[in-house]
Amino acid sequence: MRIARFSIDGNVAFGAVEGDGAPGDDSTLVLDIIKGIPFADFELSGTKVPMSKVRLLPPVLPNKVVAVGRNYAEHAAELGNEVPDAPITFFKPSTSVVGPGDPITYPSFSQDVHHEAELAVVIGRMCREVPRERVKDVILGYTCANDVTARDVQQREKQWARAKGFDSACPLGPWIETDLDPGDLTIQCTVNGEQRQLGRTSEMVRSVEDLIVHISEAMTLLPGDVILTGTPAGVGPLNVGDEVAVTIEGIGTLTNKVIKRG
Amino acid sequence: MRIARFSIDGNVAFGAVEGDGAPGDDSTLVLDIIKGIPFADFELSGTKVPMSKVRLLPPVLPNKVVAVGRNYAEHAAELGNEVPDAPITFFKPSTSVVGPGDPITYPSFSQDVHHEAELAVVIGRMCREVPRERVKDVILGYTCANDVTARDVQQREKQWARAKGFDSACPLGPWIETDLDPGDLTIQCTVNGEQRQLGRTSEMVRSVEDLIVHISEAMTLLPGDVILTGTPAGVGPLNVGDEVAVTIEGIGTLTNKVIKRG
Repeated sequence: MRIARFSIDGNVAFGAVEGDGAPGDDSTLVLDIIKGIPFADFELSGTKVPMSKVRLLPPVLPNKVVAVGRNYAEHAAELGNEVPDAPITFFKPSTSVVGPGDPITYPSFSQDVHHEAELAVVIGRMCREVPRERVKDVILGYTCANDVTARDVQQREKQWARAKGFDSACPLGPWIETDLDPGDLTIQCTVNGEQRQLGRTSEMVRSVEDLIVHISEAMTLLPGDVILTGTPAGVGPLNVGDEVAVTIEGIGTLTNKVIKRG
Repeated sequence: MRIARFSIDGNVAFGAVEGDGAPGDDSTLVLDIIKGIPFADFELSGTKVPMSKVRLLPPVLPNKVVAVGRNYAEHAAELGNEVPDAPITFFKPSTSVVGPGDPITYPSFSQDVHHEAELAVVIGRMCREVPRERVKDVILGYTCANDVTARDVQQREKQWARAKGFDSACPLGPWIETDLDPGDLTIQCTVNGEQRQLGRTSEMVRSVEDLIVHISEAMTLLPGDVILTGTPAGVGPLNVGDEVAVTIEGIGTLTNKVIKRG
């Protein structure tokens, strides 16, 4: 099932996406409004709204986003880094999350903002110290993410709170796909239609299972928390006016435009 | 005013602390229950409860905690580090926050957990790109924090999400003092009554104003968000069974016991 979060007439709701197509494709896409929230047993209401009548929101409002650095060997190499012995884990705050179609606002303190296409895992239930064989049980589904990074700031500041945590640095969407094997999916990033990143999730140094075991060893994960799993090779600059799109096989496309801070 | 957050008979409320003394000191301390929340105009209800009838909670449940590393020169030096050109900023997640009297649970993946006594700033209103002269307007008040750190993990993992973000790694309390000049306060940490850290907030490399300008340049701060301002020299190990206390002049004492993960 594909679960979207959206606003319609000033109300926010979750809905199941029916039909195939890109967000905004009115001819084929309909949302069946969910009674309740997708983190517990829920029913479809049968009330359906066409995609063009809603504004898609980030499919989840995470309490925390835990991200992982250098999880694709080719990407680590392109920035002159080695794959670390232990996963590099850092946080992106909830204030950095934006949804599909929302602008990425170029921050005032950087001159080198990069795209990083990533598979995002959405946690479905509260958990801690998750055993490997139970990882599947704590995952609600998967969505696309862009781990937008002020590369110059990242290189200047030893910890990445500002470089990767500025407002709009974490686009998520367009929806959560709940029926998906994340083991070997193509992941792609285009800028203005031109391909910049292309990889397969099978190239991850640490798998989704590895990462959730490692992170949940330290901290409780809450329903709606998001794990970003690292970016494949091909990262590069974004400029004001660019349209950046992250596409993951079996999920869909997350598109955002880069704007100047007004 | 001193604002505490507490539970009584299963309900959670904020209250104004009346009288002087340590948390739990029934003879002198009373809580006047606040109508509403302290992030907007509020009134005291006049309904008073003795401190011994309540359980103090973290004085705020932050959406995010933004912390600063190496903000006291002597502390940077004691770990063999230089004061960085730009402040080192990192996040501690809401799941790491515990209150006064709550246990610090020794994490399974570390053998070297340290205390770090810090002045915590509680944000009172949503803000971004705060000009220096407006910083005072966005601060609700100050509390004590312990930036508990798995030092071995911090040194092994390049980013500090696990080392400083594990469950119970962010004790806050005992309450928020709203009438305080943070410029030159003694800050102290004891372990089992023995002094380990002693400094003055005037030794900060970057002041509270500097830090809020720097952080809010990148990200929106929300009511209840917390800024940790760095720790003075004297950090050292905590062991299971230890009682660690952070005392800041004009605020009070935050005490927590270290327990084994059960």
